[in-house]
Amino acid sequence: MTSLYANAMGPSFIVPLAMNNRRQPEVFTLRRSLCDPTHVRRRSRSSLKTSGVTMAAATPTAQCEYTLHVDADSRKYPILFSEGVISKPDTFKPFITGDKVLIVTNSTIAPLYLNQVKSAIAATGVSVFDVVLPDGEEYKSLDYVSQIWDVCMEHRLDRKSVLIALGGGVIGDTTGFAASAFVRGVPFVQVPTTLLAIVDSSVGGKTGINHPMGKNMIGAFYQPHAVIVDSNVLKTLDDRQLAAGIAEVIKYGIICDWRFFEWCEQNVERLSSRDPDATQYAMIQSCKYKADIVSQDEKESGLRAILNLGHTFGHAIEASMGYGSWLHGEAVAAGMVMACEMSARLGWISSDVTRRVEAVLARASLPTRPPPSVTLERFMTYMSVDKKVEAGVLRLILLKEPGKAIVTSDFPESILFDTIMHYQQLYKESPGTYEHATLGLPK
Amino acid sequence: MTSLYANAMGPSFIVPLAMNNRRQPEVFTLRRSLCDPTHVRRRSRSSLKTSGVTMAAATPTAQCEYTLHVDADSRKYPILFSEGVISKPDTFKPFITGDKVLIVTNSTIAPLYLNQVKSAIAATGVSVFDVVLPDGEEYKSLDYVSQIWDVCMEHRLDRKSVLIALGGGVIGDTTGFAASAFVRGVPFVQVPTTLLAIVDSSVGGKTGINHPMGKNMIGAFYQPHAVIVDSNVLKTLDDRQLAAGIAEVIKYGIICDWRFFEWCEQNVERLSSRDPDATQYAMIQSCKYKADIVSQDEKESGLRAILNLGHTFGHAIEASMGYGSWLHGEAVAAGMVMACEMSARLGWISSDVTRRVEAVLARASLPTRPPPSVTLERFMTYMSVDKKVEAGVLRLILLKEPGKAIVTSDFPESILFDTIMHYQQLYKESPGTYEHATLGLPK
Ligand SMILES: NC(=O)c1ccc[n+]([C@@H]2O[C@H](COP(=O)([O-])OP(=O)(O)OC[C@H]3O[C@@H](n4cnc5c(N)ncnc54)[C@H](O)[C@@H]3O)[C@@H](O)[C@H]2O)c1
Ligand SMILES: NC(=O)c1ccc[n+]([C@@H]2O[C@H](COP(=O)([O-])OP(=O)(O)OC[C@H]3O[C@@H](n4cnc5c(N)ncnc54)[C@H](O)[C@@H]3O)[C@@H](O)[C@H]2O)c1
Repeated sequence: MTSLYANAMGPSFIVPLAMNNRRQPEVFTLRRSLCDPTHVRRRSRSSLKTSGVTMAAATPTAQCEYTLHVDADSRKYPILFSEGVISKPDTFKPFITGDKVLIVTNSTIAPLYLNQVKSAIAATGVSVFDVVLPDGEEYKSLDYVSQIWDVCMEHRLDRKSVLIALGGGVIGDTTGFAASAFVRGVPFVQVPTTLLAIVDSSVGGKTGINHPMGKNMIGAFYQPHAVIVDSNVLKTLDDRQLAAGIAEVIKYGIICDWRFFEWCEQNVERLSSRDPDATQYAMIQSCKYKADIVSQDEKESGLRAILNLGHTFGHAIEASMGYGSWLHGEAVAAGMVMACEMSARLGWISSDVTRRVEAVLARASLPTRPPPSVTLERFMTYMSVDKKVEAGVLRLILLKEPGKAIVTSDFPESILFDTIMHYQQLYKESPGTYEHATLGLPK
Repeated sequence: MTSLYANAMGPSFIVPLAMNNRRQPEVFTLRRSLCDPTHVRRRSRSSLKTSGVTMAAATPTAQCEYTLHVDADSRKYPILFSEGVISKPDTFKPFITGDKVLIVTNSTIAPLYLNQVKSAIAATGVSVFDVVLPDGEEYKSLDYVSQIWDVCMEHRLDRKSVLIALGGGVIGDTTGFAASAFVRGVPFVQVPTTLLAIVDSSVGGKTGINHPMGKNMIGAFYQPHAVIVDSNVLKTLDDRQLAAGIAEVIKYGIICDWRFFEWCEQNVERLSSRDPDATQYAMIQSCKYKADIVSQDEKESGLRAILNLGHTFGHAIEASMGYGSWLHGEAVAAGMVMACEMSARLGWISSDVTRRVEAVLARASLPTRPPPSVTLERFMTYMSVDKKVEAGVLRLILLKEPGKAIVTSDFPESILFDTIMHYQQLYKESPGTYEHATLGLPK
């Protein structure tokens, strides 16, 4: 059998997908070298797992099915990739422990997918309840977590009841936190419906909500019991949201595998045009990188922080612009360019790398510069409440070389200032071109 | 050197306390047999620790100092026992990681102890903030956790900042939950100020708040980084609160060491009259039992539930009477008698055991019967939302024999009903005596 991606420019570890044939399940072990963050403080050698991620072609069916196993310290769980999987009772059955299930979703997703998920779960013989939250980052708040708990209490959910997050990162983060704390923790299953949630937020167990004074400030490390990925749901996702997810896909290449970045350079239009094979490949690869990093550092004592490339700058943009104005992935895109720019100014990478990152993001219709209204002062204000500040010291994720990110506070503050001022300068010099690079998003 | 308690009727494993002399530190390993819950589902043999608790006489000082080490899966931490310890900077220094500390306490405790703790911590060179909550179980709620988070944000606490819980179980539970979720977890230190908090709630990492529809329904398993016990603080505790703590002390004897129960029978008046030696002994023993159980089953997948002897009945009493009317320890006292009564009706223990439990609790001025107003119907309503209900099945902690508790759902419901009705019957027969056994607490 030939690899589905035999002709793609992907890295050599590509795993053949079991498609439309009856091969026996096979287990492939991910080579740790695919993601080799040697610059980063690792756990002591004795506690390093040989591999935190294994990949198995699931029981063959007529469709492409894929299972990736995440091996975090606190829990092992599968990520299932399969089209149409969210409407099949068998999908959910193994993860239902008690006799009650609560699906949490939002008012946009409910009319699209709630009924099929609800019917699939009800067919397993349990009582299924739902709570439909309003749609938006501003509802990722304590009030709505509290509302989920009210519904749990009202229907007398217990320790074995399961919470299902059906939605993007907002629903996933909120539901995960609700699940972590209801009766001190009930099982929960992620059913991500945005590309960003599939490749990033639903895997790895970071859950949480925003505080009025800062994003994701309240939460828990709480791994799901399963992640169920049905790429069909992406069909209804709008282009801007899709692009925001592509930013996170590209991120993995930048932080831990430059060959995957190069694959993105070659295939970014296929991702934007929702080519199913390219999308499936990007999703699986992204989840592998994420799972591998999480398996080495679940609680972000070191390595895991590299996943936040561009996020400190990005959070400052999001917060300063008012949440919802720039999408998370858009802010991260501009933030990643800033992190590259700063790394180049530190002499760690060539500015050519920054240009390539900019170019591929722009081709995915993502912004590559911060909005001009986010001044140095505003950046500094918002960055100082970032979770990556410790005892007053700001740590940033920067690039030591293409495909190798590090967490560091070892930089002159002046270089950070210069980096931010660079964009203010660019805007002053040529407001017209500058706006192009922010893609007409609110300034 | 002779044991401080050489003449006490305590079990043979008593560890000599290093008092007023200059002995070298010694480490004693607790014999697992002191708490031998053989009836209870244990973790698989291979993962059983040889001992989860070690006990060390700390560096000798002029005063009695004691350190017990808790070895939970998620964290190892010390419990320090020493008079006057809360006003010494050296106490806190080892546990302060960042440059900011937030003390959470309440309006009763603040005037008594806040200044000394604050000064001690400030002397270590960090910024110390405080938040003083109103006093009462009704403030163990999401609103007040949210208030703690607001203060954390306002003072820009970060991942290395430390939260200190200075108070009883209410402050400890609330602060612990706040600490578990602020930036997904900051270090926290328990400084328990009630006997109940010292012997029970501050050790073991159960944190949480009440939901309007049920007690302790929202929370996290989150171990403190240290527990600091200064028995001096008990001097200001009122008698009723002290008795509530004694109930939990007696509980340990009933659930896991009948010899310790017998020690309580012989010494209960010494505890009620605040005899320092008896109190210190009871505190240390209680923490050993708790730490040992927690080290075997941190997340309450089995064994740990025995700590809740009397709690399911007790919660129903507390909830039905309105929180604050009966104290937690009082409700647990009556609940433990009910659990014994039910165990005797199941033929597992003799009714003589129930009488002895009743008698020792009554000597500690604790109620030994539920209030007559909590009818069968009310018991069943409140017990059905208890966290020990799983998939609709109520599990109770009952006694298989004196000193051996089990978690079980293997009982005829009729025996549960009969047990509850027994008290209704007693009340009907002789309201006067009955009221005596509830000690004039609200009916
Ligand atoms: N937990 C983590 O590790 C992690 C990582 C990255 C981001 N995040 C968080 O994730 C959030 C962003 O997630 P997101 O980008 O998925 O945003 P989102 O959840 O707000 O979803 C984006 C929009 O798409 C809609 N939508 C979702 N699925 C759809 C579908 N299939 N069809 C049509 N519309 C659909 C949503 O209703 C919403 O309007 C942020 O809060 C961010 O902090 C968390
Ligand atoms: N986390 C656990 O494992 C666990 C275990 C048992 C109980 N609990 C919880 O603990 C709570 C009960 O704790 P509690 O009995 O300590 O009650 P509490 O915290 O309400 O304290 C009792 C009263 O004593 C006052 N007080 C505290 N210390 C004092 C002192 N040194 N001097 C004078 N007054 C003082 C308090 O202000 C309060 O009015 C309940 O909410 C219960 O659910 C938790």
